[in-house]
Amino acid sequence: MAADAAFSWPLRVYIEDTDAGGIVFYANYLKYMERARTEWARSCGVQVRGEIQNGINFVVHSLNVRYHRSARLDDELVATAAVIALGRTWLLFQQRVERSVDGELLCEAEVKVACVGLESGRPCRLPATMQSAAEKIMV
Amino acid sequence: MAADAAFSWPLRVYIEDTDAGGIVFYANYLKYMERARTEWARSCGVQVRGEIQNGINFVVHSLNVRYHRSARLDDELVATAAVIALGRTWLLFQQRVERSVDGELLCEAEVKVACVGLESGRPCRLPATMQSAAEKIMV
Amino acid sequence: MAADAAFSWPLRVYIEDTDAGGIVFYANYLKYMERARTEWARSCGVQVRGEIQNGINFVVHSLNVRYHRSARLDDELVATAAVIALGRTWLLFQQRVERSVDGELLCEAEVKVACVGLESGRPCRLPATMQSAAEKIMV
Amino acid sequence: MAADAAFSWPLRVYIEDTDAGGIVFYANYLKYMERARTEWARSCGVQVRGEIQNGINFVVHSLNVRYHRSARLDDELVATAAVIALGRTWLLFQQRVERSVDGELLCEAEVKVACVGLESGRPCRLPATMQSAAEKIMV
Repeated sequence: MAADAAFSWPLRVYIEDTDAGGIVFYANYLKYMERARTEWARSCGVQVRGEIQNGINFVVHSLNVRYHRSARLDDELVATAAVIALGRTWLLFQQRVERSVDGELLCEAEVKVACVGLESGRPCRLPATMQSAAEKIMV
Repeated sequence: MAADAAFSWPLRVYIEDTDAGGIVFYANYLKYMERARTEWARSCGVQVRGEIQNGINFVVHSLNVRYHRSARLDDELVATAAVIALGRTWLLFQQRVERSVDGELLCEAEVKVACVGLESGRPCRLPATMQSAAEKIMV
Repeated sequence: MAADAAFSWPLRVYIEDTDAGGIVFYANYLKYMERARTEWARSCGVQVRGEIQNGINFVVHSLNVRYHRSARLDDELVATAAVIALGRTWLLFQQRVERSVDGELLCEAEVKVACVGLESGRPCRLPATMQSAAEKIMV
Repeated sequence: MAADAAFSWPLRVYIEDTDAGGIVFYANYLKYMERARTEWARSCGVQVRGEIQNGINFVVHSLNVRYHRSARLDDELVATAAVIALGRTWLLFQQRVERSVDGELLCEAEVKVACVGLESGRPCRLPATMQSAAEKIMV
């Protein structure tokens, strides 16, 4: 997939994100990645709150993460999100978190997100605008 | 109010709670206090999830906190919750977070919690079991 | 104090910030307020990470918060920070969190932040650039 | 690996852990798993804070997670941690989060944790007590 096909979202590391080891707590990279996915969805016209009100939720089905280097307090970061596969009810994202100043790769992940009924938890179809946006950007 | 009238809940500080200053992040004491309030409510027979399913939510109306000393990674703590005033739709809690090993007071707060409609956000009556439990323990 | 003397920082509510009641979890407003204070400090030339490396930390001494209305998923917010008093070793901030679309006040607080030695926890002088910046904007 | 070789740690879902979809936010399962790893380490005589003071940190190198079902507010859970492989400077954990009431598997993961220098970020040897404890329980 061409790198420039990825959606990018700038971030700043705040004290809330760090831990006593002086680095960003490992679970918090998942927050950064989720923000990038959310902003990509928003750029497709899909707002999570509206979907929840319609009885639809997006849940993570599975993920793998490889941590390369640690982000630290005050760092400026970029989180990216690219769709690399999709089905009727799911999207597979490839994501990266990079340090802005030098482009250093800190963390990369694949995250499979499923569209489910809010109450039932059962798979349901992706919103049409999201599906067609995903199909367009996927190589 | 007699100190022994307070409900106590034991806690452990994990790396998730700390920040790059090596201490517990200031907002996380509010998590500890909320756990103590939740466990007190559970001891009265009130489960938050059941209330939310019934269209009732508990929201914090106001609070003040005085931080005395910092908790650190691996510390064992106790969070307390005592009701010091109540109305038909709210409870006022006095809360403390102490270090277990020596009883040192780390943080104390007053937290006013209101019972509201989940959708409307408007005040509604406290669950009866919670109200009578609160009345019993209040001096 | 004139409202326009306050430093403003835009924010977005993500799913990470919300809770099962459908609103922003009450402790997370403290994260928003801390981000505004941090960005104000950065605008004065003070970076928290650099201070920690110099053995200085900023800790919250006390705070009070009044919650007016709840922020919800996808809301755009503004967090403000204004210094309303200061001593040699502390700053008192007045802070607000507002909904951007209509300027509705969601939450307001006073937060006293102390400058302390990272190891000792004892009060120490504010960085000079921060003190002079605070003096300038205080009415 | 025999299931009974896994270290188990009980947990409760609080409102802080949930999101507006009514379920535990996906990143927070990593907190639960880290608590189980921390308590296993403590049971081996290793405290993270002491290691950090000695200039040693434990960082996650990589992980994969498979989410099966969602935990909800007030659920009682058990997080497990078992060492399934180790090197001189790393441990590979297999972890599960289960619902206590019926043993339902909610989430499972493999998490590789590396021992590194706090400042350098370079690999360093595992504490001896941790290594020998890990060797004993590994099948």
